[in-house]
Amino acid sequence: MTYLVTTLLKLSCPDRVGVLSRLSSFVAGHGGNLSEVNQFTDTSTNWFFVRMAIQSETLRLPFNEFRKAFEPLAKQLNAAWTLRPAATQMKVVVMVSKLGHCLADLLWRWRSGELVCDIVLVVSNHDELRETAKRDGVDFRCIPVESHNHKEAFASMHDLFREIKPDLIVLARYMRILPEYICAEFSGRLINIHHSFLPSFVGANAYARAYERGVKLIGATCHYATAELDAGPIIDQEVIRVEHFHTPEDLVRLGRDCERLALARSVRWHLADRVLVHGNRAIVFRD
Amino acid sequence: MTYLVTTLLKLSCPDRVGVLSRLSSFVAGHGGNLSEVNQFTDTSTNWFFVRMAIQSETLRLPFNEFRKAFEPLAKQLNAAWTLRPAATQMKVVVMVSKLGHCLADLLWRWRSGELVCDIVLVVSNHDELRETAKRDGVDFRCIPVESHNHKEAFASMHDLFREIKPDLIVLARYMRILPEYICAEFSGRLINIHHSFLPSFVGANAYARAYERGVKLIGATCHYATAELDAGPIIDQEVIRVEHFHTPEDLVRLGRDCERLALARSVRWHLADRVLVHGNRAIVFRD
Amino acid sequence: MTYLVTTLLKLSCPDRVGVLSRLSSFVAGHGGNLSEVNQFTDTSTNWFFVRMAIQSETLRLPFNEFRKAFEPLAKQLNAAWTLRPAATQMKVVVMVSKLGHCLADLLWRWRSGELVCDIVLVVSNHDELRETAKRDGVDFRCIPVESHNHKEAFASMHDLFREIKPDLIVLARYMRILPEYICAEFSGRLINIHHSFLPSFVGANAYARAYERGVKLIGATCHYATAELDAGPIIDQEVIRVEHFHTPEDLVRLGRDCERLALARSVRWHLADRVLVHGNRAIVFRD
Amino acid sequence: MTYLVTTLLKLSCPDRVGVLSRLSSFVAGHGGNLSEVNQFTDTSTNWFFVRMAIQSETLRLPFNEFRKAFEPLAKQLNAAWTLRPAATQMKVVVMVSKLGHCLADLLWRWRSGELVCDIVLVVSNHDELRETAKRDGVDFRCIPVESHNHKEAFASMHDLFREIKPDLIVLARYMRILPEYICAEFSGRLINIHHSFLPSFVGANAYARAYERGVKLIGATCHYATAELDAGPIIDQEVIRVEHFHTPEDLVRLGRDCERLALARSVRWHLADRVLVHGNRAIVFRD
Repeated sequence: MTYLVTTLLKLSCPDRVGVLSRLSSFVAGHGGNLSEVNQFTDTSTNWFFVRMAIQSETLRLPFNEFRKAFEPLAKQLNAAWTLRPAATQMKVVVMVSKLGHCLADLLWRWRSGELVCDIVLVVSNHDELRETAKRDGVDFRCIPVESHNHKEAFASMHDLFREIKPDLIVLARYMRILPEYICAEFSGRLINIHHSFLPSFVGANAYARAYERGVKLIGATCHYATAELDAGPIIDQEVIRVEHFHTPEDLVRLGRDCERLALARSVRWHLADRVLVHGNRAIVFRD
Repeated sequence: MTYLVTTLLKLSCPDRVGVLSRLSSFVAGHGGNLSEVNQFTDTSTNWFFVRMAIQSETLRLPFNEFRKAFEPLAKQLNAAWTLRPAATQMKVVVMVSKLGHCLADLLWRWRSGELVCDIVLVVSNHDELRETAKRDGVDFRCIPVESHNHKEAFASMHDLFREIKPDLIVLARYMRILPEYICAEFSGRLINIHHSFLPSFVGANAYARAYERGVKLIGATCHYATAELDAGPIIDQEVIRVEHFHTPEDLVRLGRDCERLALARSVRWHLADRVLVHGNRAIVFRD
Repeated sequence: MTYLVTTLLKLSCPDRVGVLSRLSSFVAGHGGNLSEVNQFTDTSTNWFFVRMAIQSETLRLPFNEFRKAFEPLAKQLNAAWTLRPAATQMKVVVMVSKLGHCLADLLWRWRSGELVCDIVLVVSNHDELRETAKRDGVDFRCIPVESHNHKEAFASMHDLFREIKPDLIVLARYMRILPEYICAEFSGRLINIHHSFLPSFVGANAYARAYERGVKLIGATCHYATAELDAGPIIDQEVIRVEHFHTPEDLVRLGRDCERLALARSVRWHLADRVLVHGNRAIVFRD
Repeated sequence: MTYLVTTLLKLSCPDRVGVLSRLSSFVAGHGGNLSEVNQFTDTSTNWFFVRMAIQSETLRLPFNEFRKAFEPLAKQLNAAWTLRPAATQMKVVVMVSKLGHCLADLLWRWRSGELVCDIVLVVSNHDELRETAKRDGVDFRCIPVESHNHKEAFASMHDLFREIKPDLIVLARYMRILPEYICAEFSGRLINIHHSFLPSFVGANAYARAYERGVKLIGATCHYATAELDAGPIIDQEVIRVEHFHTPEDLVRLGRDCERLALARSVRWHLADRVLVHGNRAIVFRD
């Protein structure tokens, strides 16, 4: 059920008596109806998390004034928050290397309306996937990253990001480790898909190592990227059973479907303000 | 995180602007803190559902007065609702025939504290599982149901239920169809486990029919029992993959684990007021 | 591990003492090594099924003579069988209507080498997916099927199939029911993806009906099409959990991933001679 | 389908042309019918694995002579192998500490006929589960293992095992690390259930660490125990999805079901000679 005008509130703050009451009363007091509320209280850290979809046809204030009216309450609650019209589309950059399955999947879901956003650019350290991006009408930029030029390469990438101001950068099997200053600057807006069920098999060659270990499950993990490799808050994981007859090549093949699914869901949830990060944990209000 | 005193509110009502605000303000206004809130608005029927776990140490009223104070609000909202101390244990009757896996599983989970309730009686149309009940200290009553005596048998069962006043009757592979008047009287308190992923294979011999059809998945469904066979609101379902080499006996064996899991979870959720029924749909706030 | 030359034997016959011995001795006797053997004996019907991947570099006969040498043994066993170089690519026709997710997925897997075959044509009763086919270099033919012309339409489709002689026709969300004579003629070479976990929700509007029933799992089923709707041998099924907050539109979205996965695996297995049909059951030697 | 007399052959050897042919011809040559054959060739190490269920009513030799007749062939193949009547029940010892869910589950499956074996003893370093063992008629021995006496304790345990000669020792949440010499002596007959999806969270407090990491899946791994902690060949793994609202206690509760399932299946497969170990990998012919 979609509404003509929906406003999304995403908020986290220290918990105390009456938080939900004050927030929902604020919305009701301005004539807004709540079509979807997801709430979570982490009783171990005493922290409150909420996402509210506010049906806004009956709001008695235009969005900007409603937002302004909300600021004092948010301040009182010491809240981290965003408030935006659901119709706003996030600006997305996708980064890839040579493997195209995640990119192709994201583009298909985007074109078919499953991912509502504005994919403005594909960046790669190789040229292989130019056509894949182009045929869906997305700009492609190749920034080769070699040992001799990686500082300059990342600097130009950084300039590019600063210019584009993406709401989300998706590392869709991008095989280079981003420098710390980029991870820090785009913290919370940088999603990576890793080809194992973390924390197993951090780093490279995850499938080969899974084969060596003889696991009976393989998987993929989608997480916010941080300076520490494969260690950021996990948004989603997907697994599939494997057996003794599966070769390392089979694991790669089967794993691709895990990667695609975990990444697509995570991106979708991020785009709809369904993910809230607290320390190293992601609160995910799935749809 | 558990609290010394928690009060559980379960409520559904027609949706309108401000419902959540009024409910949460009521709780906050009496000094209660919300340690867990689950809310759902069915926008297709315009219906509101909520479960609130109210941390009650700071409530300024004793439970009975708090409850009384709530009544006018509930009335205004035209709400169906329950409000009770979480510590109240539901009274449970388990019904079985000859297959003991679900009963044994429920008893183990109960004894180990996973299911918090008061299992007062096991009723069966056979005598086979008497020992299983007895060794966990649960009374066992055999009420044989044969074609010549089924009216009297169900009547005495009905008397028994009226005397016990169970909050939940679990049909744990009870192989007789209960008469309509019992289903009606205990509607919403009668949980059945069916040995297929409904609506596939309604009725008897579900595994044999699954084998005949050559399905690649089998499963189990836990639902509230209604007068119509295997048609009530579904609480949970569980499936497992099967292959061509699995015989009908293998399906029975593998299915037992699906039955146990779907039943145990559903019972747990019912016991904690996590299931709200609306028409033929179950809103389940899982834990 | 792939070999330069692999020969695939797929065979089923009445079981008796020594079948496997005779088959494997035949292969060994001609110098072939078995790199993969999958065998199943259905003890309820006393039927024997086998798939052998024969590493053929050391075979002392060229393929055609090896095949000829095998005929007398196959005859003695009353076997249904195929024997072919693994490198032979099957000729595939894909049929669609307006929904493109399965087609796009098949095309991507084909282009990336996950599906080894020769997709020669996409046939549709609508024109919407022409571009999707074209941009991957596949011919597209629109054969509108309306109530006034369906006989002629199916007749021309039939002519087309007879001309193309496909080894596999994939109904990738083709929304028309094929006439019996086409199902019969291409029996065992006609794969359909149905958008429910059969036998639940046979026929149209499966997701809407799943929503109405309030199921907690939705899924997809890939099966060989027969004259009876959604009743042929099941190759694979896939499911995903859903909850009360998922709308019918959400079910459609989540179901798409189930459809894609079940279809892609089934097609892959068919292309590699991994599926043997016996009555209404499919023996599937997965990879 | 079970036969009055079935003989189980489990064998692995270097692969070469004609292995399967020679084995199946041997069986057929003595009048045996193969009711189930599972075969796997590891083409990366060139190793051959097979399990044959031989229907033995028509064998022209009594078991002991059949076995003797097989020896020369096995020798030629340089095979590791076992051959035994399927009816032989393995002798099993279960080891536990204080957590009883795995023990209770094994005992129930054993009593109900799902696990066909002879559970002769439960050994624990604590006394808590004595009653659980006793009420199913199984002997219980408490061998406390403290820092001051662990050498003596393990020595007496070792004596006990030597006396009992178990075909399988199940570490059903036994919380002590066995000394290397016991692991070595009972290598391949020592199964452990670990409470994480290995290789994630090796060692103690796996659920707490899973919570800290914020994973969206938890699981359990059943493997052959070796001297290296949680590093032996994996037989089976099981996972379940978790969400942000699950506390560490919830993970423990949900994980118990994973542990029970992975352990029960692995034990069942071991008991039926369905697991072959090669290096650090387990070939598992599931049923």
